[in-house]
Amino acid sequence: MVGDAPPSPRNTAARRRPVRTGRRPGNPDTRATIIAAAESEFTAKGFDRVSMRGIAKVAGVDPALVHHYFDSKDDVLLATLDVPFDPREVIPAMTREGAEGLGLRIARRFVSIWDDPDNQVRLVAILRASMSSDVAADLLRSGLVRMIITPISDVIDAPDAVLRAQCVGSQLLGLAMARYVLRLEPLASAQPGVVVAQIGPTLQRYIDGHLPRGVDESAQPAE
Amino acid sequence: MVGDAPPSPRNTAARRRPVRTGRRPGNPDTRATIIAAAESEFTAKGFDRVSMRGIAKVAGVDPALVHHYFDSKDDVLLATLDVPFDPREVIPAMTREGAEGLGLRIARRFVSIWDDPDNQVRLVAILRASMSSDVAADLLRSGLVRMIITPISDVIDAPDAVLRAQCVGSQLLGLAMARYVLRLEPLASAQPGVVVAQIGPTLQRYIDGHLPRGVDESAQPAE
Repeated sequence: MVGDAPPSPRNTAARRRPVRTGRRPGNPDTRATIIAAAESEFTAKGFDRVSMRGIAKVAGVDPALVHHYFDSKDDVLLATLDVPFDPREVIPAMTREGAEGLGLRIARRFVSIWDDPDNQVRLVAILRASMSSDVAADLLRSGLVRMIITPISDVIDAPDAVLRAQCVGSQLLGLAMARYVLRLEPLASAQPGVVVAQIGPTLQRYIDGHLPRGVDESAQPAE
Repeated sequence: MVGDAPPSPRNTAARRRPVRTGRRPGNPDTRATIIAAAESEFTAKGFDRVSMRGIAKVAGVDPALVHHYFDSKDDVLLATLDVPFDPREVIPAMTREGAEGLGLRIARRFVSIWDDPDNQVRLVAILRASMSSDVAADLLRSGLVRMIITPISDVIDAPDAVLRAQCVGSQLLGLAMARYVLRLEPLASAQPGVVVAQIGPTLQRYIDGHLPRGVDESAQPAE
């Protein structure tokens, strides 16, 4: 923020928005250049096939400079998507108490993050962008899986832990769609506590509930 | 399909795709013209403020001709969105047996419709389009509320029936996102019966389950 000192590479949440115009050349623009390069690399190759070195090459900077601004490729992804919170801090804060009550903790935190107007604008934009193309969907999927679904599945003590964690994710995605994107009423205006009381037990059931049958035999593949 | 006979106005599912090119002028093109006019009207005004008469005016045809092809504005909406099934037939088939077991019936039918590859292509396209703008979201919301959520809420015997039906809708939207758009594995490849066994009880709880507290007092509006 001051003079030419580079921003702290860890302080991504506070300065996640790339500086675009009206600033003299310098480090903030370097960060923006790296983010722009990362976007084009992610778009061309998909998240998994992009390296920090490749981003540096496209940005025309030394790889060490990329590592100065971003600790990891996940950091770059979060900056590219402009995510308004760091799931790598939020998720462990909920999972470290274990599976008991986790559904309610997730529901509370999810609603409190999304109900915040500033966050909501960014998160709706990310969700919308993720639907615009397979590439954008790949970025959201990469972030979701690595930073949200996997850490949640790690505390689920069941053979189908990943599937259960994805069901948690599906309910959260759907809540985001219904409450914040489509704005269905009365759900969109319901008090946070009402929403949490509805959604929390669903998440908890996915986390540690008994599933009546592993397979519903009467389900047909298609009609 | 044969000669110049106009298509049956009720047979919308079979001929939902507008004829675009390579056909001689005639009735199918009239239908396509009406759909194009409806799209532009919906975009300009939103679903609620569009009338059959207004669509006829923009299409440059007599209102009676719009009513020849489409029984109602809902028919026009389904044709505009190119929905591959008629929710006004599908939903009552599930709700007429009442609230008991409804969650499982909805889950089975939803998965069977979406798992069908032809349907899936169209439904993913509709979901994606609905995220592209507020106007497109308005169209999806209008269709969801009128043809899916309201009929489901009508069989829920609770003061918060609409909210509960919207929670059903939220889980279905989220399942569509996770399984068919983001294609999270293993959820995307899970057998239909496995998905139904996970999702069905969630829907049933929203329909007639006891909610531990109407309001979760510990939820905070924002952090």
